[in-house]
Amino acid sequence: MFQGGYIMNKYYAVIFISKRSEQDLEGYTRMADRMEELAKLQPGFINVESSRDSEGHGITVSYWESLEAIQKWKENSKHKAAQQRGKDTWYSNYHVQICEVIREYSFNESE
Amino acid sequence: MFQGGYIMNKYYAVIFISKRSEQDLEGYTRMADRMEELAKLQPGFINVESSRDSEGHGITVSYWESLEAIQKWKENSKHKAAQQRGKDTWYSNYHVQICEVIREYSFNESE
Repeated sequence: MFQGGYIMNKYYAVIFISKRSEQDLEGYTRMADRMEELAKLQPGFINVESSRDSEGHGITVSYWESLEAIQKWKENSKHKAAQQRGKDTWYSNYHVQICEVIREYSFNESE
Repeated sequence: MFQGGYIMNKYYAVIFISKRSEQDLEGYTRMADRMEELAKLQPGFINVESSRDSEGHGITVSYWESLEAIQKWKENSKHKAAQQRGKDTWYSNYHVQICEVIREYSFNESE
């Protein structure tokens, strides 16, 4: 069934679209898992969704309660170190958009 | 190099997160390609990015100039027929968020 409509409590999405290099795939996977665990512990974290296809093209969307929470996570020292390794080694390119969610709806076949 | 900052011309992102069923994979791929081509022809369309992993978990983000353009695409008759087949056959579940992009930045190793 459809559920949908306007947002009651404002929240935010960070869209991270990246193309992986072929370097250090194992190190990347370990770090990605570690960063996901760390993000979940941050104040204001809501959820994260991630998909990467066989050609190394990935999209991660994380959801946050406030822009301040997003900024703090961006500046987290362990996350900053991971970002630097990402630029040095793991990513050919990436693009980040910080968004305010305006509307949402969902479908679940079992409902 | 980093490029970044506030958005000069407002634009919008539609985040579509889905879990595929195992049914009619070929039909799905054909329809997904056709819908992407059709979306690109809509007024107000900017861009689309898509990733689906080997377990059928996918994220598609499309970018639009206005909320009106998003609404018109949602109501496009061919797209509506595809949405219905998606619910009947191709998706176990999906979640859609319509967002206003507030900030963005990017990285490209060759710059």
